[in-house]
Amino acid sequence: MAEFVPPATRFVDLPAPFRMRRGGVLHGARIGYETVGELNPAGDNAVLILTGLSPSAHVAAHPDNPAPGWWEAMVGPGKPVDTNRWHVVCVNSLGSCMGSTGPPSPDPATGEPYRLRFPDLSVEDIADAAAAAVRALGYERLACVIGASMGGMSALALLTRHPELTRNHVNISSAVHSLPFSIAVRSLQREAIHTDPRWDLGRYDEESYPDRGMLMARKLGMMTYRSADEWDTRFGRTRVAPERGPEPSSAPGFEPGPEPATAPFGAEFEVERYLECHAQRFTRRFDPNSYLYLSRSMDWFDLGESCGGTAEEALAALRLDKALVIGVQTDLLFPLRQQRQIVEGLSAGSADVGFLALESPQGHDAFLVDTARFGPPVSKFLFEL
Amino acid sequence: MAEFVPPATRFVDLPAPFRMRRGGVLHGARIGYETVGELNPAGDNAVLILTGLSPSAHVAAHPDNPAPGWWEAMVGPGKPVDTNRWHVVCVNSLGSCMGSTGPPSPDPATGEPYRLRFPDLSVEDIADAAAAAVRALGYERLACVIGASMGGMSALALLTRHPELTRNHVNISSAVHSLPFSIAVRSLQREAIHTDPRWDLGRYDEESYPDRGMLMARKLGMMTYRSADEWDTRFGRTRVAPERGPEPSSAPGFEPGPEPATAPFGAEFEVERYLECHAQRFTRRFDPNSYLYLSRSMDWFDLGESCGGTAEEALAALRLDKALVIGVQTDLLFPLRQQRQIVEGLSAGSADVGFLALESPQGHDAFLVDTARFGPPVSKFLFEL
Repeated sequence: MAEFVPPATRFVDLPAPFRMRRGGVLHGARIGYETVGELNPAGDNAVLILTGLSPSAHVAAHPDNPAPGWWEAMVGPGKPVDTNRWHVVCVNSLGSCMGSTGPPSPDPATGEPYRLRFPDLSVEDIADAAAAAVRALGYERLACVIGASMGGMSALALLTRHPELTRNHVNISSAVHSLPFSIAVRSLQREAIHTDPRWDLGRYDEESYPDRGMLMARKLGMMTYRSADEWDTRFGRTRVAPERGPEPSSAPGFEPGPEPATAPFGAEFEVERYLECHAQRFTRRFDPNSYLYLSRSMDWFDLGESCGGTAEEALAALRLDKALVIGVQTDLLFPLRQQRQIVEGLSAGSADVGFLALESPQGHDAFLVDTARFGPPVSKFLFEL
Repeated sequence: MAEFVPPATRFVDLPAPFRMRRGGVLHGARIGYETVGELNPAGDNAVLILTGLSPSAHVAAHPDNPAPGWWEAMVGPGKPVDTNRWHVVCVNSLGSCMGSTGPPSPDPATGEPYRLRFPDLSVEDIADAAAAAVRALGYERLACVIGASMGGMSALALLTRHPELTRNHVNISSAVHSLPFSIAVRSLQREAIHTDPRWDLGRYDEESYPDRGMLMARKLGMMTYRSADEWDTRFGRTRVAPERGPEPSSAPGFEPGPEPATAPFGAEFEVERYLECHAQRFTRRFDPNSYLYLSRSMDWFDLGESCGGTAEEALAALRLDKALVIGVQTDLLFPLRQQRQIVEGLSAGSADVGFLALESPQGHDAFLVDTARFGPPVSKFLFEL
């Protein structure tokens, strides 16, 4: 089974039994985390970062692992999340394959990987596990919780289920629930994986691995993470090579792999090559079962349903000192009206709720790449705390 | 091999050899067509309709086949394309599996289906075949050519390659070339098919058929044919059933089929069920190789490249009496700026070029379903001819 733990990720045990919201319990479960920056003597400068579906806890470089983290442009000394002031704690999601317990982890009852015997995973479980992890680490009250994409959902679940845990909140490109288009995208991503014969009801191994399904799932993800406009500029109609591969009738047997242009209906346009190369990097670096569980948890998430009312009521019940909600106008997966909904809910209960609708062309992924637009407002928000 | 010819489709032979633009020739090729409405004595009321990727020539009901056609709401007596006045000719695209010669057709050299030995298919070939077909049927000059989606590309190719053939033109939700997002979508659709082990380099049969690949390709198509807003209204977060299927660990072996909710990671939301049901209807009703050939031809199409200059120059060289270009603001596949580009090109050479940007929520498919918005302008345009 595939687990991919960054070298300096540390672990914190979850209390056992850890009860899952949709049934089932975990024993001996743990959460992977990393910290950047020092906790101050008052212990009041801790900022928790909750991640999207695929990132590890390695959010930024630090002495124990100087490799760039997944939000390196935003987190570090002098950066928008300034680790000269803030003590950043990033936790890997429960169910992931990057340090936290998930489907590829050994089931203590059998010693074998859970695979599909892992209990149903919900965003609420991810939030509860994150809350339990930071408490076990000794953080009583956080200065801020920051979550983007799925991490924004986890953050909203954490805030409503553990309202005493944080004073402030930054929510980026996220939502109180998934809309049908996003559900359809993720459903099709999962279908690509679970209909790959090599997925084999989750019993794949390194020799027989659902590469094709993971490739398609990742490509579909990439297509929805960015915007069409950005791709027009980046790729246009540029071809991979001036000539096509061999004629289909004389082509050798079609093999999967890095040379699709030589196969019938292989890549001819630069945009296809880009997707292929990036997706190839992903397929063996994320556990397919973890992907399925995490992906489904996003579809299930419904803050209103979860809190026994409407999402607006759940958000209105919070009493944050300050909150900042950011969305991107070109985001296909979490459209801007979903961030407006968060703002409206929070504003009913918290005094100081800011909202930014950024014009980035980079769609849902903008928070990862468009530091020029995301850096200043996040920096300002944290500076003024 | 799968050919799906509506019962009243007639056939017209293409001149042999029919030379394909990217190499290869066809012998004994034919084009499927249907007509609705009577040709007048002057022979000047013929309207040619070119189709999107998947439709047959059965555009509307007529005495020989009273079943509703694919554009039934728009074509018929008293309808926007009024067959009391117009003699409508709809041709099935070369390369399709619905009456015209394509990959599932027998190769006269061997008697076996062409499959991947069918020559490379381009939109220009589809246009040339349509032009040859209408000429062979005796139409010297058409009153109008109407094309939507891929049919709009075929129409632009026909107009520039056979400028004497029509006096007027209606172009709907189309483009002078495909942009990278659309290429990526279609590339992933093709990948779903050609990586399905049952595709088997195009050598599938009814017993071993790439159902899974076709299902995923169709679902992905449906996701891009409509708009997220429309799905919010139609589906929201409605569940298929209040309860999940059996637990994964006790689930029977996962079988493809109409009951995905009982399988691990099967459909739970109404939007997933909708996609599944509609895609299931498609998989065995369109030939996978035809799909691959037609899909790729859209990616390849580049009107400027085809005409040895820019698309604008090619369109500016046309001298149409009248043209109408329609786009939809929520179209993800053929965004509105692509219809503006057609208008700008045509306006440089033709006197009377109208442009409509419709606010339909139904995305690329609006021309098929949003008759309230599409009917009046098409009706008015044709009425005034």
